Amino acid sequence: MTDGNLTLHTDKYQINMMYAHWVNGTCNDYAAFEVYFRKLPFGNGYAVFAGLERVVRYIQELRFGEREIAYLREQEENYDESFLDMLREFRFTGDLYAAAEGSLVFSNEPMLRVEGRIVEAQLVETAILNMVNYQTLIATKASRIKQVATDDNLMEFGTRRAQETEAAVWGARAAYIAGFDATSNMRAGMLFGIPTQGTHAHSWVQGHDTELEAFERYAEALPDHVTLLVDTYDTLKSGMVNAIKVGLKLKAAGKHLKAVRLDSGDLAYLSKQARIMLDEAGLQEVRIVASNDLDENIIFNLKGQGARIDSWGVGTQLITASDQPSLGGVYKLVARRSAGETEWTPVIKISGNPEKVTTPGIKNVYRIINNENGKAEADYLALPDETDIEEGKPLTLFDPIHPYLRKEISDYNAIPLLLPVFRDGVLRTEPPTLDHIRNFHKEQLQMFWPEHLRKLNPEHYPIDLSPKAWQLKMDLIQKYR
Amino acid sequence: MTDGNLTLHTDKYQINMMYAHWVNGTCNDYAAFEVYFRKLPFGNGYAVFAGLERVVRYIQELRFGEREIAYLREQEENYDESFLDMLREFRFTGDLYAAAEGSLVFSNEPMLRVEGRIVEAQLVETAILNMVNYQTLIATKASRIKQVATDDNLMEFGTRRAQETEAAVWGARAAYIAGFDATSNMRAGMLFGIPTQGTHAHSWVQGHDTELEAFERYAEALPDHVTLLVDTYDTLKSGMVNAIKVGLKLKAAGKHLKAVRLDSGDLAYLSKQARIMLDEAGLQEVRIVASNDLDENIIFNLKGQGARIDSWGVGTQLITASDQPSLGGVYKLVARRSAGETEWTPVIKISGNPEKVTTPGIKNVYRIINNENGKAEADYLALPDETDIEEGKPLTLFDPIHPYLRKEISDYNAIPLLLPVFRDGVLRTEPPTLDHIRNFHKEQLQMFWPEHLRKLNPEHYPIDLSPKAWQLKMDLIQKYR
Repeated sequence: MTDGNLTLHTDKYQINMMYAHWVNGTCNDYAAFEVYFRKLPFGNGYAVFAGLERVVRYIQELRFGEREIAYLREQEENYDESFLDMLREFRFTGDLYAAAEGSLVFSNEPMLRVEGRIVEAQLVETAILNMVNYQTLIATKASRIKQVATDDNLMEFGTRRAQETEAAVWGARAAYIAGFDATSNMRAGMLFGIPTQGTHAHSWVQGHDTELEAFERYAEALPDHVTLLVDTYDTLKSGMVNAIKVGLKLKAAGKHLKAVRLDSGDLAYLSKQARIMLDEAGLQEVRIVASNDLDENIIFNLKGQGARIDSWGVGTQLITASDQPSLGGVYKLVARRSAGETEWTPVIKISGNPEKVTTPGIKNVYRIINNENGKAEADYLALPDETDIEEGKPLTLFDPIHPYLRKEISDYNAIPLLLPVFRDGVLRTEPPTLDHIRNFHKEQLQMFWPEHLRKLNPEHYPIDLSPKAWQLKMDLIQKYR
Repeated sequence: MTDGNLTLHTDKYQINMMYAHWVNGTCNDYAAFEVYFRKLPFGNGYAVFAGLERVVRYIQELRFGEREIAYLREQEENYDESFLDMLREFRFTGDLYAAAEGSLVFSNEPMLRVEGRIVEAQLVETAILNMVNYQTLIATKASRIKQVATDDNLMEFGTRRAQETEAAVWGARAAYIAGFDATSNMRAGMLFGIPTQGTHAHSWVQGHDTELEAFERYAEALPDHVTLLVDTYDTLKSGMVNAIKVGLKLKAAGKHLKAVRLDSGDLAYLSKQARIMLDEAGLQEVRIVASNDLDENIIFNLKGQGARIDSWGVGTQLITASDQPSLGGVYKLVARRSAGETEWTPVIKISGNPEKVTTPGIKNVYRIINNENGKAEADYLALPDETDIEEGKPLTLFDPIHPYLRKEISDYNAIPLLLPVFRDGVLRTEPPTLDHIRNFHKEQLQMFWPEHLRKLNPEHYPIDLSPKAWQLKMDLIQKYR
C-alpha cells in the first residue's frame, strides 16, 4: 500500500525550488546545509544522535522512478519535460558529514551537514529531518529512562501506540541504541537484530476457564521462557498464587519460571508483596516485570519507594516521546558557491527572534577532551581553515551568547564530531553494526560529567564558537542590519 | 531498508500465544475482539475513525515469507517445525467489521471487531491498533482544527516533524479525511491523490543576492502558482514591498501572485498590515497564508483578533497530535467459541479500575437518529439476537454508568455503525475513494448537534447499552466477584 520509493517523501516546495533552479540555470550551484536543533528535549542535558543509517539507505536508494515522474507531470503543467528528464538521471552526488549514531549532541551544534548541488541538497531536506528528528528524539527519551533504570532490564513495548509502522521499528532501534535491552516488536527484531521479549496477554487468561489452567497451558508450550501476567483477576490473591504453583511445578521438572508481570495497580506495593511471596515459596530466581504507562519519572519514583522490580516494559511514553513528541531539528543554509567558484560564501539568516539567527559558514565541530581528567570540556565550532585546534595549540573557549565567560585550555584532545559519510555521492564506509553503536553510546556517556547527564536541571554543556567563527557571524549581522 | 512485509509487525507475545495454542491444540478455537478507546483525545466531544484502508491492505497481504519463517526459527528453539509449516500456510480467514472511515466515534463503543480463529485474531491485534490509533488520533486533531478554520484553506505541513515516514503520509491522509484541503508531502499526494501545495523556503531567498531577485526568479519559473515567503529579512519593510513589486509585474503580464506567506512574528498584526498593503497596491486577489507552530487554539485566537489570514499551514502540532500524541485504543476479547461449538460464550475482564471492566459479548452498534429533527440521539449497543431495534420498536435509552438517566424513543432510524469488511477472509467491497470518505465525514458532522462538536467543554454524546447487554455485564461481574 505504501511505496518503498521515498524519493517523493519531500515537501512540494523542494520540487518547486528544484524546478525554479532548473529554469534559472542555477541547478549546479552548490549549497551547504547544517542540521541542528535549538532546544534540548525534555529539559535533558544532552540528546542522542540517531537516524543516520536510515538516512544512508534513503540516499543510496534515491531515484525518481516512472511512477514518480508520471505523478509530477500530472501535478504541475508548468514542469518542462526536460526537467523531468533531468530527474530521471537524478542521483545524490554530494557530500554528507554526520555525527556517529549514538553520539551525544547538544543544541545549536551541527549534527549533520549536506554539501552538494543545490537541487540535491534541497530535495533531501524533508526526509533527513523526518528521520533524524524522530530517531534522535526517541534515543534521547530512552537514554533518560536508562539513566534511571541503571542495570535493570528495559523492554520497549510501544508498537500499538506508536505513530504508525515505521515509528514503531525505528523507535525500537533508537531505544536499543540508548541502552534498552529488547523490544516486543518482531519486525524490529528481524530487521535490526534487536533481542525480542514478550509475555502473554490478558486475553490468554480470559480464553481459558481458569487462570491456573491458562498459566499451566502456557508453561507447557514455552517451558524455557515463561513470564506470567498475574493481574487479570486479582494480582496477589489469584495471579501470584497460581504463578507460584506453576513456578514450583516447573522447578520440580528442572525448568524455571522466568518472571511474573504486574500490569496494573500500585506497582510499588504489589512488587514488594510479590517478592515476599516468591521468596517464601523458594522461588528467589523468579524476576518481577512491571509495565503500565511507565516513564523515567514513574520508574524513578518506584525505585525510590523500594519497589522490587527487575525489569520494565515501557510503551507509549517512550515510543511517542509523549511529554514532547517532536524534536525541532532544522536544516539551514550556511554557505553557497556558484558553479564556477571554488570558494564558499557564508550565508546568514537574520531573524527578529535572536535565537533564530543562524551561524554562517561551514563549521567543523570538535569535542574538547581535557587530558587531565578525560572528560569533555566543551564542543568547539571552528571554520574549515582554522588549524590551531588540529595542531593542539592553546584554545580560548568562550560562550557565544556571553563572550565574557571564557577559559583557556592547552592540554586537550580534540575529537571531530562530524565524520564523512558520503563523498561525491559515494558511501565511504558501511554503517557500523547496531551493537557497535550501542557500545559507542555507552562509551560516550563516560566522557561526560554526571552533572551534564542528570535527569533534572542538568548543568549546561558549553557549545562554543571559535573567535573567527564568532567574528564572521558578527560581521554578517552588521552587514544585514 | 524496512521490509514491505508487515506480518511480523506484531508483539512477540502474539507469536508466543499462537504457538501455545498450537501446542495445546486450540488453534481452531474462535475468538471475538473489539477495538475501542476509553477516553476521547484533546477533551474533544468525538473522534474521527480512520485507518481502515491501511488495515484492509495489511490483512490482504498477511503472509509469512521465508525470511519471517527463518527469523522465527532462529529466535525460539522451542518452536516446533510443524508450527512453522502451519505459519507458511497462514492466511486471515476470519471476519472483520468496522465503522466506515470518516465516521464519528465515541469512547467505549466498538469501532472495529475481529472474529476468527484465535491465532489469526491474536496476530493482527498489534498492527490494527498501531494503524487505527494513530490515524484516528490525527483525523480527530485535524477535525478540531477544521471546526475552527471553517472555510479557510488548510494545508498539512508536518512531514519534517512527523514520527518517521509512515506517520507523515498516513497522517496527511487522516487530515484530508477530516477536512484539510492539501498536504505538502508529495508521496502522500502520489499515493492517495491528496492535492499538494507548497511555497518556497527561506533558503531560496538566502541563496540569491537580494530578496527581490529571489522573488522574481521564483515567479518566472512558476508563474501560475506563486506564493512568496516574506519574512526572511523583514516582513513589512522588505518582504511585502518586494512581493508587491512582483505581484504588480505578474498582473501586468496577465498572471497573478497567488499568495504571500507569513512564517514568524505577530501573525495577527502582520496579516492585517499585509492585507492593507496588498489592497492599496490593487492586489485584492492575493491571499495571505500563515504558518509557524499553529494549532486549533492559536488559529481560534488569531481569528478572534481579526487576523486577515486566508490559508493556514499546520505542521508539528497536527502531525504529532502534540498535546496528546497517542490514542489509547485497546483490543479486547469479548467472546470465545471452541472449535466444535456454534454458540459464542461472552467473556469479561474484571479490573480493580472500574472503567477498565470490559463489556462482554459481541455487540452491534446503532446510531439512533431522531426522525423529528434528523439528529443523532445516542449510539446504542445491542447483542446480536436483539431484533427490537431492527424492527423499529420503541427503545429505552439509558446510561450504563447512571442507569436512572433514561429516555424513551419511538420515532427513530437506527443506522448500523459496524459494517462487514471481511467475511471468511474475503474482502466484501473495495474501500471507498478518499474523496468519498471526506464527503462522508462532512455528512456525518451534519447529523450531530453543535453542542457535541464544539472544541471546548463539549456536551457528552450518550453511548448506551441495551437492557439485555447491560444485564449480561452485571451477571458476569457478579459471577467473577
